[in-house]
Amino acid sequence: MTETISALFDTPLQVVNIGIGTFAETLRQQEVPVVELDWQPPAGGNTALVEILKQTDGTRGLAEKIDAANRQAIERILASQPQVVDVQPAAQALGLTGRTILHAGPPIAWEGMCGPQKRAVLGAIRFEGWAEDNAAAEKLVESGQVSLSPNHRYRAVGPMTGIISPSMPVLVVRNEAFGNYGFSTFNEGRGNTLWFGLCDEATLERLAWIRDTLAPAVAAALRQGGPLNVFDIVAQGLQMGDECHARSAACTSLLVKTLLPPMLEAGVAGETAAGIVRFMANNNHFFLNFTMAAVKATMDAAHGIPYSTLVTAMARNGVDFALRVGGLGDEWLVAPVSPMDEAVYYTGYSVADAAGDIGDSAIIETCGLGGMAIAGAPTIAAFVGGSLAAEIAAVEELRLITLAAHRKFSLPPMNAANTPLGIDVRRVVETRIVPFITTGVLHETSPTVGQIGTGVARAPLAVFEKALAALAHKWGLSTSLPEPETVLLRK
Amino acid sequence: MTETISALFDTPLQVVNIGIGTFAETLRQQEVPVVELDWQPPAGGNTALVEILKQTDGTRGLAEKIDAANRQAIERILASQPQVVDVQPAAQALGLTGRTILHAGPPIAWEGMCGPQKRAVLGAIRFEGWAEDNAAAEKLVESGQVSLSPNHRYRAVGPMTGIISPSMPVLVVRNEAFGNYGFSTFNEGRGNTLWFGLCDEATLERLAWIRDTLAPAVAAALRQGGPLNVFDIVAQGLQMGDECHARSAACTSLLVKTLLPPMLEAGVAGETAAGIVRFMANNNHFFLNFTMAAVKATMDAAHGIPYSTLVTAMARNGVDFALRVGGLGDEWLVAPVSPMDEAVYYTGYSVADAAGDIGDSAIIETCGLGGMAIAGAPTIAAFVGGSLAAEIAAVEELRLITLAAHRKFSLPPMNAANTPLGIDVRRVVETRIVPFITTGVLHETSPTVGQIGTGVARAPLAVFEKALAALAHKWGLSTSLPEPETVLLRK
Repeated sequence: MTETISALFDTPLQVVNIGIGTFAETLRQQEVPVVELDWQPPAGGNTALVEILKQTDGTRGLAEKIDAANRQAIERILASQPQVVDVQPAAQALGLTGRTILHAGPPIAWEGMCGPQKRAVLGAIRFEGWAEDNAAAEKLVESGQVSLSPNHRYRAVGPMTGIISPSMPVLVVRNEAFGNYGFSTFNEGRGNTLWFGLCDEATLERLAWIRDTLAPAVAAALRQGGPLNVFDIVAQGLQMGDECHARSAACTSLLVKTLLPPMLEAGVAGETAAGIVRFMANNNHFFLNFTMAAVKATMDAAHGIPYSTLVTAMARNGVDFALRVGGLGDEWLVAPVSPMDEAVYYTGYSVADAAGDIGDSAIIETCGLGGMAIAGAPTIAAFVGGSLAAEIAAVEELRLITLAAHRKFSLPPMNAANTPLGIDVRRVVETRIVPFITTGVLHETSPTVGQIGTGVARAPLAVFEKALAALAHKWGLSTSLPEPETVLLRK
Repeated sequence: MTETISALFDTPLQVVNIGIGTFAETLRQQEVPVVELDWQPPAGGNTALVEILKQTDGTRGLAEKIDAANRQAIERILASQPQVVDVQPAAQALGLTGRTILHAGPPIAWEGMCGPQKRAVLGAIRFEGWAEDNAAAEKLVESGQVSLSPNHRYRAVGPMTGIISPSMPVLVVRNEAFGNYGFSTFNEGRGNTLWFGLCDEATLERLAWIRDTLAPAVAAALRQGGPLNVFDIVAQGLQMGDECHARSAACTSLLVKTLLPPMLEAGVAGETAAGIVRFMANNNHFFLNFTMAAVKATMDAAHGIPYSTLVTAMARNGVDFALRVGGLGDEWLVAPVSPMDEAVYYTGYSVADAAGDIGDSAIIETCGLGGMAIAGAPTIAAFVGGSLAAEIAAVEELRLITLAAHRKFSLPPMNAANTPLGIDVRRVVETRIVPFITTGVLHETSPTVGQIGTGVARAPLAVFEKALAALAHKWGLSTSLPEPETVLLRK
C-alpha cells in the first residue's frame, strides 16, 4: 500500500480523470486542478467525422501538409508585432462610404438582430445625425437607406454589440511583422453605452467627447511617443491579474502611465489630459479594444494558409456564432450561439432576460488570451467553479484542443506556464471540448438595463463539425457528410 | 485501503508535516502547499522560556489580560485609515533641527554603521550643502558636528539605508481613525541612489528634482484632490500581483492614475507632470514608501497597549535588528541581523559581498503585507522555493505565529484568503518560526554597485526570546532569565 501511495504521489498532480467522477470530486475539494473527461468515443461516436479525423492524423500525406500549415500559422502568430500607430475616423481608416453601420459577428439582417444590437444601430444612426430619434432611425434602416455589415469585412472588431459608424474614431493597429492592419473603436466604459445596447443623451455626448477630445489626444500622444506595442502591455497585464478579456484593469493602468507622458509633451492641455485619465481610471475595460484590434491584426496574419486547421477568428452577433479557419479562406462557418446559461447573473436577472452571446471579442481566445489565460485572473474564478484550482484545470483542458503555447503570455499562478495557443478544429471535433469565452451578458429587451451578468460562453460544437466537413470537401476527401453552407466574409 | 485513501482525500490538502520529510517532499513535488515542521520541543526545549510561555497561556489571569490587549491592538490596526494628507520638508514635518541625519533601524554610532548606510549619510550631508565632498562630510560626522538618529524616533520610516535629512520632502500620512502621523521620503528609484548606499552627481540632481519638482506637484495634487487612502490602493495592488514590499508595480500604476488628474487640475504644467509620470513609470518601487508610512501610522496606533505581545515594528540598520512590542513601551529589543544567505543574488555576487539586512521597511510585515502576503505575488516565488505552492505554504506557516488576518488584504491565488496579521512574540518563541521579510540586498563595500540581490531575510530569533524575557520581567513573573538589555527609542 505504501508503494501504491508513493507511486501516486510521484505523478505530477494535475489530474485528467476519465470515467467515475468521485475521485475527481475529492481532488477538487482539496483544490488540486482536475481535468475531468467523461469517457466517450472520439467525435461522440459520429463515424463520418471519425473517418475524416483518421485521414487527417498521422505524420504523412495530408497530415503532414496540415501540420506544416499549422506550424506556419503558429509561427506567424508568435512573430506578430501589433502596434497602435494612429487614431483615425472609421470612414477614413476602413474606407466606409455612405450610410454604413458595422456590427459584431457574422452578417445578419435588421429583422434578425438581437435587441441590444438593434438599439445600438439606432444609437449610431442618431450619433451620425442621419436621424433625430429612434423612430426615424428605424425607418431609415427598414427602408434600406442604411446598410449593415460585419466589422470583420473591414478588418475591424468591436466588443459586445460592436457598432462602428463612419465618424467614430478607431485605433489603427499595424502588425509590424507582416504589414497588415486591424481596427477597433475606443471602449465607451460604463453607463448607458452602445456596446451594451443602450443609447441616451449621455451616450451621444460621450461618443462626441471620444471623437472630439479623446481621439485627437491619443493620436497626438502616438505621434509624439511613437507606436504603442500592445502585446508588451498584455504580457505585463497577465502578471497582474488580467486575462485580458473579462478583465483589463492592469493593462488599462499600464496604458495610462505609458500614454500620458507623450500626450502631455505633445501639448494636450492639462485639464483635457486629466479628464482622459479619469475616463480611463473609471473604465477597467478601456484596454480591451486595444487587445482586440491587436489580436485581429495578429490572427489575420496567420490566416489563409492552405491546409491549416487553426481557428483564426470567432465572432458572435447575439444570434449566430461564426468561425473562421485558416485553410478555408473567407468562408466562415455559422451556427446558433449557445445559451448563456453558465454566466453569473446580477441580482434579479437570469438567462431568461439574456441576449445571446455577442461580440467580436471572442477573437481574443484564438490568440492565447481570455479564457485561454483565465488562471491568470484569480479574481474571476467564479466564472469556472470558484477556485484558482478550477481555473488551472480549465486551462489544462484547453491544452487538449490547442496546437501550441504563446511564449509571450504566461500565467503566474501556474508557475509562469505559457497560455494555450491556437485552437485546432480537429481536436475540438475529436474531444468535443469547445473553447470558452470570458464575456459579459446583455439584457435582450430593456432599453435601460445593459449588462446583467458576466461569465463564460461556450462556442457551439456545430461550427467546428461543419468546419471539419468543409475542410474534408476542400481537400477532396471521401466523406458521407454534405458540404456545409458557409458565409463569405471577405476582408 | 480505499477507505484510507478516501479519508486522506477528505482532509483539506494544506499539509502540516511533522517529522519525516519524505512525505512532504513528494507533496511539494506535486505543488501541494506543505508546511513542514521538524518535530521539536516548544521553544527549542529552553525550559526557562517554556516556563514563561506556560504562565502566559490559557484563558484566565495574565493570559486573559494578554488576549484582551492583543485583541485591542488588532482592532486598532483594522480600524486604522492611513491617508497621505500632505508633503512637507522633513525639517518642518518631523521637527528636525540643526545638522541631523536620520537613518533606518536602531541607533548606531558612525563607526559601527555598515558601508551603504555610511555612504548614504555622506551623500545626504552633501545634498544639504553642509560639506562639498565625502572627505569633508566624513570629518563633520567624525567630529560630532552631524548627529545621527533613527527614523523611528521621529515617527518616520525609510527603505534600505533609510536616510532622511532636513530638506528632503516627506509624505505626511495621517491615521484618520486615531489622529497620529507617519512619515517617509519619496522613493528615489533606480540607479545610484541613497537608499541603495550610492551617491554621485546624478543622485544629488535627482534629490533636488524630488525636492523642487516632484514634492510640490504631489502636494498640489493632494490639496486639489484631497487625501489619498493608501490601503485602498494596497488592497487593489494585492489583487494585481503585488505583495507590497518587494513588489509595488501595480500599486505604483494605480497611484499614477489616482494622482494625475488632481495634479493636472491643480495647474501643474503638462511637461512637469509628464516627467513625474515617467519617473513613476520607471520605478516599480515608487509606492513602497507610501505603504511604509501608512503602515507606520497604523502600527503606532496599535502600539503601547499594556500586556500586548504584538510586534508593532521591526527595523534593521545592516548590523542590528530591532523589535518593538506593543506592551513594552519604547524599549526595543536588539540582536545582530541574520546573514543574507537565502537571497537570490545577481550574477557575480554572493553573500560574501552583502551588507547586512537593512531598512525600516520590515514594519510592512507587521501589518499583514510583504512576506505575510507573498502568495499574492507569484512573480517572486523564487524567494521561497520557486512555486506558488511554496509561497502558499510559507503564508500558511506564518499563520502559526500570527494573531489574526487582515480583512482588507486578500490573496487571489489563495481563493481570496486574508493575509496573516499580527506577529505574537509568544508564538514565535514557542514555534521558533520567525517572520521573513521580502527585501533587497546591498553591496557592503562598493561605492558604485548598489543592489546585488533580492529575496528574504529572516528576523533573528534572539530578539523574540529577549522580548519574551523582558515581558516576563515587566509582568513580574518568576523567571531564571535575566532582564535583557533594551534600547530606548522614544518617538
